[in-house]
Amino acid sequence: MLTLYIGNKNYSSWSMRPWVLMKQLQIPFTETMVRFDSFEGQSAFKQAIAGVNPAGKVPVLVDEGFAVWDTLAIVEYLAERFADRGVWPQEPQARARARSVCAEMHSGFSALRSNCPMNVEASLPEVGARVWREQAGVRADVERIVSMWSGLLQQWGGPMLFGRFSAADAYFAPVCLRLKTYALPVPAEIAAYVEQVLALPGVKAWNDEALKEHDFIPFDEPYRTAR
Amino acid sequence: MLTLYIGNKNYSSWSMRPWVLMKQLQIPFTETMVRFDSFEGQSAFKQAIAGVNPAGKVPVLVDEGFAVWDTLAIVEYLAERFADRGVWPQEPQARARARSVCAEMHSGFSALRSNCPMNVEASLPEVGARVWREQAGVRADVERIVSMWSGLLQQWGGPMLFGRFSAADAYFAPVCLRLKTYALPVPAEIAAYVEQVLALPGVKAWNDEALKEHDFIPFDEPYRTAR
Repeated sequence: MLTLYIGNKNYSSWSMRPWVLMKQLQIPFTETMVRFDSFEGQSAFKQAIAGVNPAGKVPVLVDEGFAVWDTLAIVEYLAERFADRGVWPQEPQARARARSVCAEMHSGFSALRSNCPMNVEASLPEVGARVWREQAGVRADVERIVSMWSGLLQQWGGPMLFGRFSAADAYFAPVCLRLKTYALPVPAEIAAYVEQVLALPGVKAWNDEALKEHDFIPFDEPYRTAR
Repeated sequence: MLTLYIGNKNYSSWSMRPWVLMKQLQIPFTETMVRFDSFEGQSAFKQAIAGVNPAGKVPVLVDEGFAVWDTLAIVEYLAERFADRGVWPQEPQARARARSVCAEMHSGFSALRSNCPMNVEASLPEVGARVWREQAGVRADVERIVSMWSGLLQQWGGPMLFGRFSAADAYFAPVCLRLKTYALPVPAEIAAYVEQVLALPGVKAWNDEALKEHDFIPFDEPYRTAR
């Protein structure tokens, strides 16, 4: 049986990726939420997760006691373990390109990630407008996202990045949420893709549960003082 | 035919990973060096790489015109394309763990990476001693590296992290170089593993070619003013 350890659904964009992937592909799992309090060494979060993942982070997938950590390794593990579910696109070049864009997300887009942290229940269009004016790095990150998604939607015909839903869409679901929360300006075909992603049952389920959390984590809230 | 686009061998730790992997597994390729000048938008580097990789970074592997970027996607591409070479460990849990530690490297160890940038030809033990005293983050990163490597060497019996050489060793080869350049203190079994990695033909070949570059890139040299 698979168990996925995740952080708060309202804030943990990395936890969201494998959760949405498994829900969407109907891979059964149980989940354990490890609440974010702080990422310092003695925090309750760090103490709780240390026994599961020596890297001290969420998400972690545990399969009969064997821990797989970091989203990319989890995705590859699921792709091998559930080879018939279409975790990655089937065509080799599409699969390679999906891995490229996921790896690009994994190590990049730092301006977007730091200036527009994921916050499912927030609506921050004024913050987004200010960030957009002041942060060239955010504009460059969104420009790259738009270019990447436009190219893939055109090449593979949509509605998802590689035609059918794959790990790539799960990987960019938190980016779709950021674009919406901060109302960042994108072309119509990108806005349409964002709406398609937000309408996926796996994404809706995550968001619905995020809205029920009623938790406010100050270090994940650079722009608000309360819900 | 495969072509690998790389940055300066003296400095580009990300380029080193797939280069060493392919050399070590005797996968034939040609290489194209795109010299680092700056990572700003109008730099010669950015302009040269833009036509190859829309993400604007090295390394990029080009296979008959098809570009695969980011080290992790390149490693998976090679694992599929050369399935008999042992890119990843053969045993499924070993393979999953190798992917976990590579992904952990891919998105982590920021204190070590920023304070101790790779610099093959430099010897900076005094800098290393100061960084070690002053930067708790570097000590924490090295502590995690030591714990990870010790556990793997014990579990899989060495001499490489998963017994035989795999992508995991290529992934950590630049970390071995940093430990040496900055003379960071590690236990004897870790120092022995570092020496084993530095003695691999693929690593020696990279380092030999790095020493022949005679190029000094100021933005990659926080601690020196000349060679």
